[in-house]
Amino acid sequence: MAARTVKLAVIPGDGIGPEVVAEGLKVLSAVASGHDLAFDTTEYELGARRWHATGETLPDSVEAELRGHEAVFLGAVGDPSVPSGVLERGLLLRLRFAFSHYVNLRPVRLYPGVTTPLADVAPEDIDMLVVREGTEGPYAGMGGVLRKGTPHEIATQDSVNTRFGVERVVRYAFAAAARRPRRKLTLVHKDNVLSYAGELWQRVVREVGAEFPEVSVDYLHVDAATMFFVSQPQRFDVVVTDNLFGDIITDLGAAIAGGIGLAASGNINPENDFPSMFEPVHGSAPDIAGQGKADPTATVLSSAIMLDHLGLSGAARAIERAVAEDLLARAKDGLSERSTAQIGDAIAERVAGQG
Amino acid sequence: MAARTVKLAVIPGDGIGPEVVAEGLKVLSAVASGHDLAFDTTEYELGARRWHATGETLPDSVEAELRGHEAVFLGAVGDPSVPSGVLERGLLLRLRFAFSHYVNLRPVRLYPGVTTPLADVAPEDIDMLVVREGTEGPYAGMGGVLRKGTPHEIATQDSVNTRFGVERVVRYAFAAAARRPRRKLTLVHKDNVLSYAGELWQRVVREVGAEFPEVSVDYLHVDAATMFFVSQPQRFDVVVTDNLFGDIITDLGAAIAGGIGLAASGNINPENDFPSMFEPVHGSAPDIAGQGKADPTATVLSSAIMLDHLGLSGAARAIERAVAEDLLARAKDGLSERSTAQIGDAIAERVAGQG
Ligand SMILES: CC(C)[C@H](C(=O)O)[C@@H](O)C(=O)O
Ligand SMILES: CC(C)[C@H](C(=O)O)[C@@H](O)C(=O)O
Repeated sequence: MAARTVKLAVIPGDGIGPEVVAEGLKVLSAVASGHDLAFDTTEYELGARRWHATGETLPDSVEAELRGHEAVFLGAVGDPSVPSGVLERGLLLRLRFAFSHYVNLRPVRLYPGVTTPLADVAPEDIDMLVVREGTEGPYAGMGGVLRKGTPHEIATQDSVNTRFGVERVVRYAFAAAARRPRRKLTLVHKDNVLSYAGELWQRVVREVGAEFPEVSVDYLHVDAATMFFVSQPQRFDVVVTDNLFGDIITDLGAAIAGGIGLAASGNINPENDFPSMFEPVHGSAPDIAGQGKADPTATVLSSAIMLDHLGLSGAARAIERAVAEDLLARAKDGLSERSTAQIGDAIAERVAGQG
Repeated sequence: MAARTVKLAVIPGDGIGPEVVAEGLKVLSAVASGHDLAFDTTEYELGARRWHATGETLPDSVEAELRGHEAVFLGAVGDPSVPSGVLERGLLLRLRFAFSHYVNLRPVRLYPGVTTPLADVAPEDIDMLVVREGTEGPYAGMGGVLRKGTPHEIATQDSVNTRFGVERVVRYAFAAAARRPRRKLTLVHKDNVLSYAGELWQRVVREVGAEFPEVSVDYLHVDAATMFFVSQPQRFDVVVTDNLFGDIITDLGAAIAGGIGLAASGNINPENDFPSMFEPVHGSAPDIAGQGKADPTATVLSSAIMLDHLGLSGAARAIERAVAEDLLARAKDGLSERSTAQIGDAIAERVAGQG
């Protein structure tokens, strides 16, 4: 019997989700033996197929079952056969909100050997941690439509920002910054235009920052931040930002760090009142689904974030090391033709080999 | 007497604004003689100094005077001595809203010779026109704060999207796309999350698009769009998007096209019910103000957009040609040490030389 058994809910989801999740689980199996771990997994069929069959995105009963797990491991959600937003809001965002995933953790790191679209950038130039708020902002879904279909139609979309919600994520971000060598926190917002929300974010950063005098604080408007992501990524250490700005800059972050095939994320409830959820930043990519073309590395790296969250940092580091080795091997040996499963196998072997 | 005299209001504004505007006016003078034009300019002192002296950002009487001009030529607005947003909202956004600048036109072009932070990108790969909505969205300033300063504080920020407002900018964007060789329009939004506003934008693009069967239509979520800006800029021809997304992606666009020193814009009221306003995308850059370090090229290129809007396309092309030559000369001769005025002189001489 393993010393620790993790009760893990698995949602392969849509598109390439099942393919990349299979590789993620393969690597988790490989790391388990060497670290005296076991994963007790339950798979949930949620996503487009279920919606077509039953009209359900996330039945209450399934939400309740998921709640009984230590973590949720998710592939991807979304399919062109389903109206835009139905699965995203009904499943993915519903889980983030229901499980208070107020920290959406997205490391942006350029691994050695990985090609970036930026000229003149070395791996040490891109090493940031984006702490994206995950439970409010424009993602709250508030707003509405008046006089739909008439020339006088009005559609509103409301960003909701609470002291409670902003403070908890800002405090998390400061604590994360305090643990990193550079100890720098950059707030990204647009306070010269979004004045109500921006003033709250600024004030909370000021007040919580007083508890972390060792962390230096910077502020950038979101538009300027996108510019610096490509012209001066060295500028960033920890970034804290709202749900929508975080969505945008982390896709850009993925792009500069070698592409969406490598970008990992954790939807975290730091208090463990609810299971946290780990998923690659990429979506379901229906155009390449079922062809073994997807890179499972983002999913594998998301599993490392999961292990860290579960306190299993030895296993997390083992996976990250294996991924780093595999990425270097790709650069050296030109391994561009490998299938999803071959990449998963290669990483799993390296993990096992470290044992 | 010149055949055409343009009545031009000039707002040098804050920071580097006065320096770059001086060069813009220099180039306009140079182009005037060769094209039988004259500029009758009136300068308005608006910005930080006026706010400190009088508490005013834009007195009604000045707004009324500006209205009597054919165009407004603006440097930059914003200063660290003034609380964030006061001048931006009280002057810049006020003018955009009062003068119905519903088209915020921002070309993103990589000129030959210009260094881009992207590897493996040639000038012909970056040639897009972003049509940013300018009079609604989250910029409407709506929202508020409840229970300020308490643990129960809530700050909201509302995006307002009207059929009227969306349709007019979408129609402008389609017409612009129809005039370009590639005839492609990309809507950038986030309709899987911002469902009310997103559905309106999508529906309007569908309906107005029926009038432009020759234009092909694409859609990208804003997060994916930022990724493609750096990984595949060739993908974009005309982009239409809301006020906030447009703000973000055009700064990113400036970055990939060689930096904010070159990014031009026009705040346009196509019906000429109000004067349109032309300004560089960069802000006031107070850190380098007064040192002759700012690149006036963005301002000069904004004056070319202005001339186009005024129907003076011969003069506009002359300025663009002179800028293109100057940028090429920089690359060839390593002219990196020139002052703001030297760059303005060089462009003005080339413009005059073409006469
Ligand atoms: C699929 C979508 C709802 C989601 C988001 O906007 O959060 C995705 O883009 C992400 O970043 O995880
Ligand atoms: C200064 C600011 C209000 C402005 C904006 O957000 O529109 C600027 O960033 C721009 O893009 O012109």
